[in-house]
Amino acid sequence: MLKSYLESKRKLIDLNIELYLDKLVYPKVIAEGMKYSILNGGKRLRPILLLMVLELYGKKLELGIPTAVAIEFIHSYSLVHDDLPALDNDEYRRGKLTTHKKFGEAAAILIGDALLTHSFSIVTDKTKDVSYEKIVKIISMISRYSGINGMIGGQMVDIESEKKMVSLETLEYIHRNKTGKLLKLPVEIGAIISDASDDEYTALKRYSEALGLAFQIQDDILDIEGEFEKIGKPIGSDLELEKTTYPSLFGLIESKTILAKVIEEAKRSLDIFEKEKVQNFIQLADYIGNRDN
Amino acid sequence: MLKSYLESKRKLIDLNIELYLDKLVYPKVIAEGMKYSILNGGKRLRPILLLMVLELYGKKLELGIPTAVAIEFIHSYSLVHDDLPALDNDEYRRGKLTTHKKFGEAAAILIGDALLTHSFSIVTDKTKDVSYEKIVKIISMISRYSGINGMIGGQMVDIESEKKMVSLETLEYIHRNKTGKLLKLPVEIGAIISDASDDEYTALKRYSEALGLAFQIQDDILDIEGEFEKIGKPIGSDLELEKTTYPSLFGLIESKTILAKVIEEAKRSLDIFEKEKVQNFIQLADYIGNRDN
Repeated sequence: MLKSYLESKRKLIDLNIELYLDKLVYPKVIAEGMKYSILNGGKRLRPILLLMVLELYGKKLELGIPTAVAIEFIHSYSLVHDDLPALDNDEYRRGKLTTHKKFGEAAAILIGDALLTHSFSIVTDKTKDVSYEKIVKIISMISRYSGINGMIGGQMVDIESEKKMVSLETLEYIHRNKTGKLLKLPVEIGAIISDASDDEYTALKRYSEALGLAFQIQDDILDIEGEFEKIGKPIGSDLELEKTTYPSLFGLIESKTILAKVIEEAKRSLDIFEKEKVQNFIQLADYIGNRDN
Repeated sequence: MLKSYLESKRKLIDLNIELYLDKLVYPKVIAEGMKYSILNGGKRLRPILLLMVLELYGKKLELGIPTAVAIEFIHSYSLVHDDLPALDNDEYRRGKLTTHKKFGEAAAILIGDALLTHSFSIVTDKTKDVSYEKIVKIISMISRYSGINGMIGGQMVDIESEKKMVSLETLEYIHRNKTGKLLKLPVEIGAIISDASDDEYTALKRYSEALGLAFQIQDDILDIEGEFEKIGKPIGSDLELEKTTYPSLFGLIESKTILAKVIEEAKRSLDIFEKEKVQNFIQLADYIGNRDN
């Protein structure tokens, strides 16, 4: 049930991503590179989360489409830059050549820059039924959550933490910012667009925080137990980079116990909503904890 | 007279840039790197242009400060990324080590990303007396002018045009986008904030387009005739990269004639304004054409 739901929403998101991409034509290498980077078979988890919140409130999905697409552009740019030789130096992502392997390093840097820059254009471009005040609030949140005090901050500390054991506090900072912020972002924006009450906003935010942490712990676990064919990148890269992870701090078994607890926490956060209305959110939390890619 | 005007405005801009930078503390390398990259003794021409338009309309400068600072953040990010080994591979800028030489390549990529991302946060953060509708319009313009259809597009075509002779049309595309768009941007935004009439808007836009072109032609000329001590980077880099420039297409003497014409055009665009009110703009056009750095 959840799988077909996610699949139908993924298609809706991909369709809209392509509509935005179709308008970009020149310079060809940038336009093609943006398409290549973003149309990579991603799960579209972030945009889907935004749509899920809108559905919870019975809002039209159109209200959130531009922002949902914009967030995916930002997610995509972050992968393009993270894969660069100076950073993670990855050659494959989801079984395809990474952007710099395909288009060269100079173009990949600019393609990432273009994805990031264009995301803000998308948010302003078409969100017609959302007030200007809300759009400004949304843009502010996007830039804060993806900048120095968000995703970029997490990425930098992650790099600094290679080849050494770091504290749980630092590991939590990395997780909270590097992956966490961009998973919170669509949920909070969905709540803003839907005029959620303060209590509901807090509940959804807690859910997304727990979901983000679960996502990351499972990522750490998959780096040990996963299969190349499914996750589309080499196994054991954390070990190779001597990264501190949940398994390296707590061991594999304890990490799985923590993961289970965090998933329960995510579900419990939504207790203030009628249970049948948040079925998708609950199933998604379970799915995140059991995913194999 | 112009010099002291520019100097006082530069100080105002620098003060405000520092106020924004002071709020950024962690991760240290990103915060320090952003400071290092943006506080590089730049002329702040773009932010000053925005303030000049506000003054022309008797508006409070505070109305434009956040956007002016944001544009300088974007200008600074573009320099950080352009200097990277995969792109221009420059070691010095304004006589100081480039960001990647100082902080390493991985950090420099992220520092550039952080400058770009944070610029949007600045625009939304504090422009209290500008309507939300205008802020959205401003953000849209910033992202369009600095993205694939603006600065990044120009930069990509510039790279593609190395080691070959390109047409005047391509050269004009590069100039119009790589440097031109970011010089138009503050002028147009100033006109939006000031509620300029359509005619005035067009006049100011033409001025900024001519100014941008003059700036670039003079840049090409300085790459041949300039002095390292003044421009802070090696002379002759265009020749070395076999770049098409105004001098390579038209020769040095004809390029200077074109430059003089473009500067006249810039000044003439402002004929609809009372002459005494646009003295600074006129002097600035002359200054751009005669600058030695």
